[in-house]
Amino acid sequence: MKRGSRKISAPALRARIWVERDSAPAFTEAGADLLEQIQVCGSLSQAARRLGFSYRRAWMLIDGMNKRWPLPLVQTATGGEHGGGSRVTEYGCRVLQSYRNLQAQVETLVDHASAAFHRETQS
Amino acid sequence: MKRGSRKISAPALRARIWVERDSAPAFTEAGADLLEQIQVCGSLSQAARRLGFSYRRAWMLIDGMNKRWPLPLVQTATGGEHGGGSRVTEYGCRVLQSYRNLQAQVETLVDHASAAFHRETQS
Repeated sequence: MKRGSRKISAPALRARIWVERDSAPAFTEAGADLLEQIQVCGSLSQAARRLGFSYRRAWMLIDGMNKRWPLPLVQTATGGEHGGGSRVTEYGCRVLQSYRNLQAQVETLVDHASAAFHRETQS
Repeated sequence: MKRGSRKISAPALRARIWVERDSAPAFTEAGADLLEQIQVCGSLSQAARRLGFSYRRAWMLIDGMNKRWPLPLVQTATGGEHGGGSRVTEYGCRVLQSYRNLQAQVETLVDHASAAFHRETQS
């Protein structure tokens, strides 16, 4: 198993945060991305398309989030499955903002820790 | 979509960190757990069993990590596929320690941020 020095690219530290309730994901990176696209498009199907999600996946994500928070994060107007438009509620905006704030803090920490990590793991 | 207040358990913030090289995972939570069990058992097959991993999965994890770092993290003695025992190299111990240090820092941050997150996302 011994071997000489090899050409290997630098390691990149990655972090992901999410929120669980009852051990089930209640707010994830994919959910945050979807909420942001709904804010931009006002439509779940357009938001899904922009992210390369199937409409079904996007709908299930929203439905799951809406069930796992005390108030809905997204409201879908009546007018048929693809019809009525969707909007992120004021509460949904708040959860999204809190998630992005925490994510930014974790990413800052990981960026700052990178130099030490690389130093410690030099061969 | 409007609804009354519902009984929902408190949200739990979760974080995971990992290391990538060339966009492929080079060190993950599962890899760290496996290294720790090898330190305890001195055997890849026993370490895999303790974690509920198949031997194949554990072997692939170790093989992938050994290939993605400049030095091997685990050395497997000759003596047949399940035979010769495994040990975490000094370099493997260092990578594991750096990973656990960073993980502890991220978890501390997330724990500290929890109170603010809960306050911000109260309905």
